[in-house]
Amino acid sequence: MPDGRRTVGVIGGMGPEATVDFFAKLVAATPVERDQDHLHVLIDNDPTVPDRSAAIEGAGPSPAPRLIAMARGLVAAGADLLVMPCNTAHAYEADIRAAVPDVPFVSLIEATVDTVAAAASGPRSVGLLATSGTLRSAIYHAAFARHGIAVLVPDTDDQRTVTAAIAAVKRGRATQTERARLREVAERLALAGAEAIVTACTELPLLLGSGDVVVRGVAVPVIASTDALVVRTLEAASAQRGDAVTP
Amino acid sequence: MPDGRRTVGVIGGMGPEATVDFFAKLVAATPVERDQDHLHVLIDNDPTVPDRSAAIEGAGPSPAPRLIAMARGLVAAGADLLVMPCNTAHAYEADIRAAVPDVPFVSLIEATVDTVAAAASGPRSVGLLATSGTLRSAIYHAAFARHGIAVLVPDTDDQRTVTAAIAAVKRGRATQTERARLREVAERLALAGAEAIVTACTELPLLLGSGDVVVRGVAVPVIASTDALVVRTLEAASAQRGDAVTP
Repeated sequence: MPDGRRTVGVIGGMGPEATVDFFAKLVAATPVERDQDHLHVLIDNDPTVPDRSAAIEGAGPSPAPRLIAMARGLVAAGADLLVMPCNTAHAYEADIRAAVPDVPFVSLIEATVDTVAAAASGPRSVGLLATSGTLRSAIYHAAFARHGIAVLVPDTDDQRTVTAAIAAVKRGRATQTERARLREVAERLALAGAEAIVTACTELPLLLGSGDVVVRGVAVPVIASTDALVVRTLEAASAQRGDAVTP
Repeated sequence: MPDGRRTVGVIGGMGPEATVDFFAKLVAATPVERDQDHLHVLIDNDPTVPDRSAAIEGAGPSPAPRLIAMARGLVAAGADLLVMPCNTAHAYEADIRAAVPDVPFVSLIEATVDTVAAAASGPRSVGLLATSGTLRSAIYHAAFARHGIAVLVPDTDDQRTVTAAIAAVKRGRATQTERARLREVAERLALAGAEAIVTACTELPLLLGSGDVVVRGVAVPVIASTDALVVRTLEAASAQRGDAVTP
């Protein structure tokens, strides 16, 4: 199967658990008979990238210079396809694309929104579980709007619960308490009309998955941005070099 | 805690599941309060490295040129500490060290043997579960001999079982059958006198762990090379740059 396939460069470390989770799912999803059938993957797991939500909220330095340096470093090391398993950092997607215009970048946001839009259940509204920075930047709102899909977000108290759950995963200390509270937040969004839940932060699938959200006896689909990125990355990497990769 | 800590370069992809496993365990073992406390890790997951066992047995090309290129690439990208989560590839450890003499290399073999030698139970003999290439190269025999620890290896039939188990993990298709057969091989080594079992191939901890090997009602310690490498890597990376790192 090699080669002519693309070398995947992963702008990672935001956080490291999410990068591990993406890498593990990418390896598990690749159909192989032997080592050599796997993709060549270069990972820069840099956990010192400035906090994305803080920057978006005007309370910290921009991560863009570091993200651009990582993208350029990965390309210099041989990557010819870039991915970034961190939703919030996609507020800086345009900066990265502009810095390495010749290398395709697989957008986590587009992959997720396209997956929701193509879902068999055809949701007309989604509940968005994400960092405060992702909500503030409105990157998902704009992308879902293009598909005519409405976005519901947690109220202020519930968003604190989401933020705390993400922080617990980052500290490696998430417990059943965080799981249960996150499930309750998701169920409230479903009761408010969300026809699917989108875990739009790469830490969240470690706490909430398919079958976890049940309202009035019916399971509400949970769509993980990480899974959408894995599928899209495999497709894009398997395209021959020289083929167009969109987007 | 950052920085002054070393950036870890991972010569990976042999196989990708083992690299995922090492990365996941390294992240989980790092004490953190936030993303920024994690280590900066650069991974080159190249699954096209020529087969190590085949090369050692004279049936294929040497992986050394590719391993050296990966080491140099990681150093060029900023790594100042190198690790390689593949036991068999350590037959080429001296080639890698010679190619990048100024960057410390944490030996998986030394880490594992030191861990066994320091074990509370003080084993005088170990059962070695490894690839045929690792056995043929005798890298573990020499290192254990320096500690006066005897090495028992599976007989020909049982080694076929070990090889098949490793291949099943690499194909992502290991089942309870491989687990059960591998456990039987380990138990036969313990019955033959091994006071501890060493899973000296980074695929094997995915199938056999502590508590799995029980002989005459007593659990035989199972020591995983991957775990030993994680501990040693954390120690070496946390040493200030400029400090000596041994070995």
